[in-house]
Amino acid sequence: MKIRLAQINPIVGNLESNAQLIIRTIKSSGEYDIIVFPELSLTGYPPQDLLLDSNFIHKSAEMLETIKEIVGEQIVIIGFPRRNGNDLFNSAAVISKGEIIGYHDKILLPTYDVFDEKRYFKSSSIISPIKAEINGAPLSIGVQICEDLWGDDYDTRITETLIDKGAELIINISASPYRKNILDKRLKLCVDKSYRLKYYFIYCNLVGAQDELVFDGRSFIINSDGDVECMGKAFEEDMIDFDSNQSNALNKSKSQMSECEELFMALSLGVRDYFKKSSFSKALIGLSGGIDSSLTAAIAVDAIGKDNVFGISMPSSFSSEHSMKDAYSLAENLGIKFETIPINNIFTEFLGEMGSFFAGTDSGLAEENLQARIRGNILMSIANKINALVLNTGNKTELALGYCTMYGDMCGALGVISDLNKKEVYKLSKWINDSSKGPLIPRNSIEKEPSAELKENQYDPFDYNIVSPLVDHIINDIFDQETLTNMGYDPVLVKDIYRRIYQSEYKRRQAPPGIKVSEKAFGAGRRYPIINQYRERK
Amino acid sequence: MKIRLAQINPIVGNLESNAQLIIRTIKSSGEYDIIVFPELSLTGYPPQDLLLDSNFIHKSAEMLETIKEIVGEQIVIIGFPRRNGNDLFNSAAVISKGEIIGYHDKILLPTYDVFDEKRYFKSSSIISPIKAEINGAPLSIGVQICEDLWGDDYDTRITETLIDKGAELIINISASPYRKNILDKRLKLCVDKSYRLKYYFIYCNLVGAQDELVFDGRSFIINSDGDVECMGKAFEEDMIDFDSNQSNALNKSKSQMSECEELFMALSLGVRDYFKKSSFSKALIGLSGGIDSSLTAAIAVDAIGKDNVFGISMPSSFSSEHSMKDAYSLAENLGIKFETIPINNIFTEFLGEMGSFFAGTDSGLAEENLQARIRGNILMSIANKINALVLNTGNKTELALGYCTMYGDMCGALGVISDLNKKEVYKLSKWINDSSKGPLIPRNSIEKEPSAELKENQYDPFDYNIVSPLVDHIINDIFDQETLTNMGYDPVLVKDIYRRIYQSEYKRRQAPPGIKVSEKAFGAGRRYPIINQYRERK
Repeated sequence: MKIRLAQINPIVGNLESNAQLIIRTIKSSGEYDIIVFPELSLTGYPPQDLLLDSNFIHKSAEMLETIKEIVGEQIVIIGFPRRNGNDLFNSAAVISKGEIIGYHDKILLPTYDVFDEKRYFKSSSIISPIKAEINGAPLSIGVQICEDLWGDDYDTRITETLIDKGAELIINISASPYRKNILDKRLKLCVDKSYRLKYYFIYCNLVGAQDELVFDGRSFIINSDGDVECMGKAFEEDMIDFDSNQSNALNKSKSQMSECEELFMALSLGVRDYFKKSSFSKALIGLSGGIDSSLTAAIAVDAIGKDNVFGISMPSSFSSEHSMKDAYSLAENLGIKFETIPINNIFTEFLGEMGSFFAGTDSGLAEENLQARIRGNILMSIANKINALVLNTGNKTELALGYCTMYGDMCGALGVISDLNKKEVYKLSKWINDSSKGPLIPRNSIEKEPSAELKENQYDPFDYNIVSPLVDHIINDIFDQETLTNMGYDPVLVKDIYRRIYQSEYKRRQAPPGIKVSEKAFGAGRRYPIINQYRERK
Repeated sequence: MKIRLAQINPIVGNLESNAQLIIRTIKSSGEYDIIVFPELSLTGYPPQDLLLDSNFIHKSAEMLETIKEIVGEQIVIIGFPRRNGNDLFNSAAVISKGEIIGYHDKILLPTYDVFDEKRYFKSSSIISPIKAEINGAPLSIGVQICEDLWGDDYDTRITETLIDKGAELIINISASPYRKNILDKRLKLCVDKSYRLKYYFIYCNLVGAQDELVFDGRSFIINSDGDVECMGKAFEEDMIDFDSNQSNALNKSKSQMSECEELFMALSLGVRDYFKKSSFSKALIGLSGGIDSSLTAAIAVDAIGKDNVFGISMPSSFSSEHSMKDAYSLAENLGIKFETIPINNIFTEFLGEMGSFFAGTDSGLAEENLQARIRGNILMSIANKINALVLNTGNKTELALGYCTMYGDMCGALGVISDLNKKEVYKLSKWINDSSKGPLIPRNSIEKEPSAELKENQYDPFDYNIVSPLVDHIINDIFDQETLTNMGYDPVLVKDIYRRIYQSEYKRRQAPPGIKVSEKAFGAGRRYPIINQYRERK
């Protein structure tokens, strides 16, 4: 039996191009008995509220009809949204000989973090293998969709039930986004189950980026001994081919890439697909000489090429000599275009015109934010002028603390490193330097003390070695103050950080979408009220 | 039997102050047999991801214990999040004589539009009246929570089942947000059911604003003849008292307020509570002399008082004489502070500094957006300086079409009229003038042709009489191109408007939260992908 996993990168909403991609793949896969496409591969994932448009559902069904016609003796499995009466299912169509020979409708609908599937879909309660035929021989296929695999409660043991009902192999179609360590989690789960239940487990995952999400691909097949037979490429389209008569187990049980390499590839794909799928080619980045903008620029160069990246240095009277030098060195190292636009005269002009409010007052937050917003305005103006997108350079720690200026350094089309904490920013920057021939990110950007340089002798008022992991415990783990204090954190600091996080929710509500690489990123997957007076009082 | 509906305005997250409000209310209601509080009144609604914090749930339970102690012979019903093992329920506690004598856990969990209840709560399947006692006499109370009322499928007839099982009256605790015509819908549903099933229907709704949502209160009691016995105030806290021995039906079957009055009060409360609950008192509004900013200022004055509202006129070289005059007249009419800050010198300074990109190019979108962003920057700077919040003045039609500038006129803490289409903006402005002693909004602002005044002789490129309702059909009704064409809309226009809406999603993702007054507003309740290549091709 010859199986092909078509790890494709569809575009959300573009039913025509997705259908054409599927048709081309089927036509060039004549020798395979089974061809598997990912979850909702016809619409792209997640289609979100497009699923509420009845015409969208109708056209998807029409596209599936067109695809169906070209399927011959082989078995093709395609994810699509299936309307049945008033109900909509997240479904897999099993097609053979020009006919849909069965459906599996998703049973477990993720409705947490970024997932809203119960907003759109009805949960199916039918767990039943699909009877197919390969070269005249019957084959009972257990089909499941993404989350169906993860149900471990006794009443959701979908895999076990399929096997009990005679499934000879399990095929899971997924749209599982990348997060740190996710491959190991997927593999462990599937290896254990395959070994215990003695079945072949075939997993076809989506690849490509969509808004905040990056799908990492890495589809795989595990044999009934729990060995990994084959695995698709990470972060790119791939056809993973397997012949059960020529089994050649890889015995791969964990990711072969370092965490930094994975992160870098994930962020790079996130940027690349955002540009490609929105038909932009040029990126503009404000280069401060600091570590955040340097890392962002390095990722952008990998994603869309150095000729498409413009770095703009925007010094003020508070900018240090080394900041301008470091920004320039970075641009030179990366080979990107570089321009300097000083903001001091504009700043002075603003203060003069606003004299009725500013004259005679102490310089403070308003003056600091003004500088950041002048920079934001310059970046957006140039982006408009040269038809580029501004990339946002904020990291997760400062976004959490609200240590950033709305419409200033918070501007941009996409947050590239907004889900990396400050320590990860340093780690990834060092990894980039170590894995290149020479250092790309100036050593000084990595070694100097972080500063926003919005007033004299200003340095970030946080010890990131303590605050970065603390923030992650609050955001990712939702640890309460008592737990954090028991872990050794200063209770006064914990209370202050909690307050800063809650009080800055209004800023994040207007932040650009950011590429998600952790289990809990800011954005669609984290929904806190702006007006929120919850405080632990003790 | 004496019933009190405590239509309160809790604050999301502030468990202590909400509990104190509930306790004060109970203590001052000694003569009532039944005291009813709204859905999730202990936490405020919607608490969103605070519900994922186990400590938050734990503290809510502790607060309920404290409240419980002060309840005597009477029956008190309070909405709170109830943890039971691993499950969390949206629950109503029924308390009497210092004990919780029963719970009703919500059965129908809204997971559409702004509602995400299946993200947090497990759906209960138990439909059973709660046995209580009043003055020694047994009373069987059918409790339900908000959406439980709206289930009309045969398997969700919760009201009918409660009656069948002996409930002598139905008490529904709600957190139902205001939308146009919502009161009539609620009343019709409840009147019909009460009349048909011959029972008392008691409905206690939340009041107050939370981020995008405004809860309108207007709690009511309907007798078994289907007559409205009493109704609470709209858009403010109220105690609605009813004595079944002194029944005096109002026979009210629809809202007594005009749609404009309702809208105005809803928006005013939305602004007032946003300021109050985030501890700000002053608002800053950019006044262009146009209708949108004029209306926004009039609402702000009603919400927080004229002494707290600052109007800033920011003319450019493209600003007409009448714009500045109209802005000034408005400020005078409203009695608000007013300042003029011209942007031309700043604009020139920007263009000069960005000469390497701008010199020798044709003036276009970049230069237009730059002016809008200078204005945004001025507003934000002054707001920072005087500790005010900027109110956003964009309307729903321009937000839909992307006819607005990110970080420019799209800046602000809260969108006041972002859910009113352009026609509604005019209608409400006229209503304000008609219902005041003299015109507050200058006649010229209402009568002149709308213009952004970002270049010479620029006027809005839309016929709002056609485009405003068309946009609403697309956003609110999700009508497809064929349906719209059949309704008489020009197919070329329809296609263009659809494209504009999809292509400007990235702007709305970074828009301020806006007060929701329609069935479908931009913001949390409308979730479209940014990368979205869905287009109807024909």
